Amino acid sequence: MIFRQICSEKEGSLAYILGDPITREAVVIDVAETHLPAVEEFLRSRGLQLRLILVTHWNVSHEKAAETLRENWGARLAAHESVDAASVDMRIRDEDVLYFGEESLRVFHTPGRTPCALTYAWNDRLFTGETILVRGLHPKLRGQAKVRLLARLHALLERFPEETLLYPGAENQGRRLSSIEEFRRRSQLGTGGDSAGFLQRYSHLLPNKNVAKQGEKVRAEKNLHRYGPGKNVPASL
Amino acid sequence: MIFRQICSEKEGSLAYILGDPITREAVVIDVAETHLPAVEEFLRSRGLQLRLILVTHWNVSHEKAAETLRENWGARLAAHESVDAASVDMRIRDEDVLYFGEESLRVFHTPGRTPCALTYAWNDRLFTGETILVRGLHPKLRGQAKVRLLARLHALLERFPEETLLYPGAENQGRRLSSIEEFRRRSQLGTGGDSAGFLQRYSHLLPNKNVAKQGEKVRAEKNLHRYGPGKNVPASL
Repeated sequence: MIFRQICSEKEGSLAYILGDPITREAVVIDVAETHLPAVEEFLRSRGLQLRLILVTHWNVSHEKAAETLRENWGARLAAHESVDAASVDMRIRDEDVLYFGEESLRVFHTPGRTPCALTYAWNDRLFTGETILVRGLHPKLRGQAKVRLLARLHALLERFPEETLLYPGAENQGRRLSSIEEFRRRSQLGTGGDSAGFLQRYSHLLPNKNVAKQGEKVRAEKNLHRYGPGKNVPASL
Repeated sequence: MIFRQICSEKEGSLAYILGDPITREAVVIDVAETHLPAVEEFLRSRGLQLRLILVTHWNVSHEKAAETLRENWGARLAAHESVDAASVDMRIRDEDVLYFGEESLRVFHTPGRTPCALTYAWNDRLFTGETILVRGLHPKLRGQAKVRLLARLHALLERFPEETLLYPGAENQGRRLSSIEEFRRRSQLGTGGDSAGFLQRYSHLLPNKNVAKQGEKVRAEKNLHRYGPGKNVPASL
């Protein structure tokens, strides 16, 4: 396992390099322009071949850095299917699996701060971008969007052990990593139950009281993106 | 990799279970009496065989818990060679390697809070006990002992990537893990140079100004515990 976290000293934004020590194939997550020199230096010094450029959310700086990386390394840019920029090579969705060398990571759609927000799972760690910061959810996220995201995360995080590491997209109060256990404790998310039950329990926080009824809808839609024959086939390089 | 962190709700002390998913052999670190039910429940539920009981430092609660685990699981208790309690089965020292199943961990002697303090390295993580807490060194550690430990850690941590995770022996302000990068940043430890140079640089902090000269001694003793033919052979199960 080759792993590097790179912090932009000025903005505190965090980028990641994930590599397969056998085949030397690598992916990067959330590289902005300020990370470029450190990222390319690391890739070169370890003899890595960049295969895939991933983003947890779409913004101008990610797009510009991706252009440079595509040109220099021949890597492909992957983003959520809701992003319609022409530079995206692969449009990915919830539960996709991406392969690089003998490693793989899984894609989860976690809309909240942005409709295209993705979380990636690799080994014992999740890359959460702006979805989960070190101190919890993004402070600007409020109301219905916040409860919906909490419900989504409640169901998603159940699938991982509580020691699973959370690597955010930005430094916060000098911290650059957290764990599911800590996030649960701080956000009082609790464990057990499904997301529909969670939504009903937290519905009093919402301006629109009818959202409790939408719990039923969540329950029905839950299996929409499961794999089936000829459906949601994992994206592969 | 099987990994579990267990927190005693009352005291906030942290114990760890490390397991090999292939052979189901396991070791525990710093189990106190309050952790026992959770630890044994986890070992049983995952079908693990406890091979080795490790402690980062010696105290009564660790000793009592070890007695129970030895009896119930037939595991051996390992502690630093400076501990002369009769219940210790294996006396280990700096740079020993311990094996369980197809996994291994390395032992580092990091005296400071106690003369018998050990740090264990396993995969991408260090188990630091009371040597490095989430917010830095133990607040009760001062003066010469503190500078000596800082010098030791300065040299030791150079051997690991800065993403290496630090798992402490106690929860602190709700936090249960950190990284070498964060510890370096917070303790202004810096990188580069050897421990002798470090000791000379920080000697003004010491009551005894002659310690700067002891830097030379550190340099000379540095290779004392290296492996050689028939010397410091790794302890193996």
